[in-house]
Amino acid sequence: MCDVVLSDFGSFHIGGRRVELTGLPLKEVHYSPTWVEQYDPNGSYIVEQMYVQYLIPKNAQTTPLIFWPGGGLTGVNFETTPDGRSGWVSHFLAQGYPVYNTDPVERGRSGWAMYPEIFKEAPTFMTEERGFESFRFGLKDGFDVQPDRRKVMPHTQFPVEAYHQFIKQIVPRWTSNGTATITAYHLLLERLGQSVIVAFSSGATQALQLAAQYPQLLSGLVLIEPANVGEGVAPAAFKDLPILVVYGDFLDKHAAWPDIRARMGRYFAPVTEPVGQTTVVDLPLLGMTGNSHFLMMDKNNHEISAFIGDWLTRKVS
Amino acid sequence: MCDVVLSDFGSFHIGGRRVELTGLPLKEVHYSPTWVEQYDPNGSYIVEQMYVQYLIPKNAQTTPLIFWPGGGLTGVNFETTPDGRSGWVSHFLAQGYPVYNTDPVERGRSGWAMYPEIFKEAPTFMTEERGFESFRFGLKDGFDVQPDRRKVMPHTQFPVEAYHQFIKQIVPRWTSNGTATITAYHLLLERLGQSVIVAFSSGATQALQLAAQYPQLLSGLVLIEPANVGEGVAPAAFKDLPILVVYGDFLDKHAAWPDIRARMGRYFAPVTEPVGQTTVVDLPLLGMTGNSHFLMMDKNNHEISAFIGDWLTRKVS
Repeated sequence: MCDVVLSDFGSFHIGGRRVELTGLPLKEVHYSPTWVEQYDPNGSYIVEQMYVQYLIPKNAQTTPLIFWPGGGLTGVNFETTPDGRSGWVSHFLAQGYPVYNTDPVERGRSGWAMYPEIFKEAPTFMTEERGFESFRFGLKDGFDVQPDRRKVMPHTQFPVEAYHQFIKQIVPRWTSNGTATITAYHLLLERLGQSVIVAFSSGATQALQLAAQYPQLLSGLVLIEPANVGEGVAPAAFKDLPILVVYGDFLDKHAAWPDIRARMGRYFAPVTEPVGQTTVVDLPLLGMTGNSHFLMMDKNNHEISAFIGDWLTRKVS
Repeated sequence: MCDVVLSDFGSFHIGGRRVELTGLPLKEVHYSPTWVEQYDPNGSYIVEQMYVQYLIPKNAQTTPLIFWPGGGLTGVNFETTPDGRSGWVSHFLAQGYPVYNTDPVERGRSGWAMYPEIFKEAPTFMTEERGFESFRFGLKDGFDVQPDRRKVMPHTQFPVEAYHQFIKQIVPRWTSNGTATITAYHLLLERLGQSVIVAFSSGATQALQLAAQYPQLLSGLVLIEPANVGEGVAPAAFKDLPILVVYGDFLDKHAAWPDIRARMGRYFAPVTEPVGQTTVVDLPLLGMTGNSHFLMMDKNNHEISAFIGDWLTRKVS
């Protein structure tokens, strides 16, 4: 990246609630061959907090920018690409934004809680096979442990040669923590004041739910490949909020994506410009082809962050 | 913190190995009320990778500095204190070091793997009660959910008023991943070249094991409150390596710490200056009183990072 002058760097955890556990059995834990202790899991815990890392450029614009990752993902997605290029954190710092990069509740540095005692179910884990297909890096059943045998999307912008680095970013995922997650981001908005949220995939779906409840806390909302509509949320709730929705390429090469895209188009139609403030963009129609689900990692990720930055300048700043 | 000019910021995952799972049952997962899928956990995973975040100051000194957290902890410990003061990441950036802040294998942004299929056991979880006593913030049974009823160490330097923020940093801990953890840091040293490691608590114990195997990869080793000796490691192995061992206050107020301190003193005696290159420091004997186990968070954390920086300048740089 280019040199950037930071006036502040650090992190905090926001939200969380106390839970008391009782009646669980003790367990012998071997901390080392010579150090064995009775482990007592009973007592008081703080759970459902969220980790927020901030990088504040000197002479920052006033609008903070919050990155909200998708399911099973952390803020790592926005830092550096799997093949080692600069990520959107650096790009938006260079644009002058104070950047708040988050690990949603349950993930990464937010930590997670015992299940089924606190979290209600077991998490799911992403296989290499599933990631390769779901995120439109390759065709159905296109993954092979031998890289040269993989069936990748033709002319893909995703750095498929670094797929082994990409898959290391994925963490276990619960589907039962949606409310706690939205609560944590609400608290973050209350702390920071009016902000721009850049939300990805299922994070974008949750961000829409939050935006419908508290549109006044947002100055803009960027939804990267939302995977679902805001359930039970009528789009009229955010009629006056500038929203940019961005989709990549190859939707028609996957079983589920054409339907997702069509539903999202219908959902946003009542608030799409000029009636409302929403713009839905398909990158191939702008001449940017080959993009996967992970626009922030694709080889043209800088071109896309510049496009988003232009939109923010016109609509938000 | 003071303004700092970064020439680079980002992260990567290092290490990891592929595991194939077969024969596990499918499970129905409710991603949302309307989106239900058959989840198939069978397939290929990458596990035991380690997350490394880097901040490179412009005109950096050549020696990278690696932060290695203790058990159940992540790089968050070194970023910002629970009461919002600047952390050792900022302090050592200001001293000119390229900083590599890590989440050990299994923790934070490193992710974790299914158990018992891949990781061999269940993790342990830290209660508020245990953390309060073990880390010498308060006396035995000193924790109460009501902050004003807690029995804190007299004149403690730990920001006990922000204990609820501290406890949010703790993540689940396995005790079966020691070898994988040491392997990941070895790979990191191979990638960075000669570096300084600053390792905390049980991380310091593991760092000693690594240093004994590859002393030539280190230019210095700072051990913050090591909790145990390097098991099976004779200190002669790192006779020529500059090592600084630092302990805080209140060791005699806790059941386990006096014995730990005495054992570590005996262990390092054969390599302590002037025979070897090791210095073992008790901060109270230098006039710094009131420190807890978490020297990097205590209210005099800046004084301690300056002390370490002075030692590095004299012995390493």
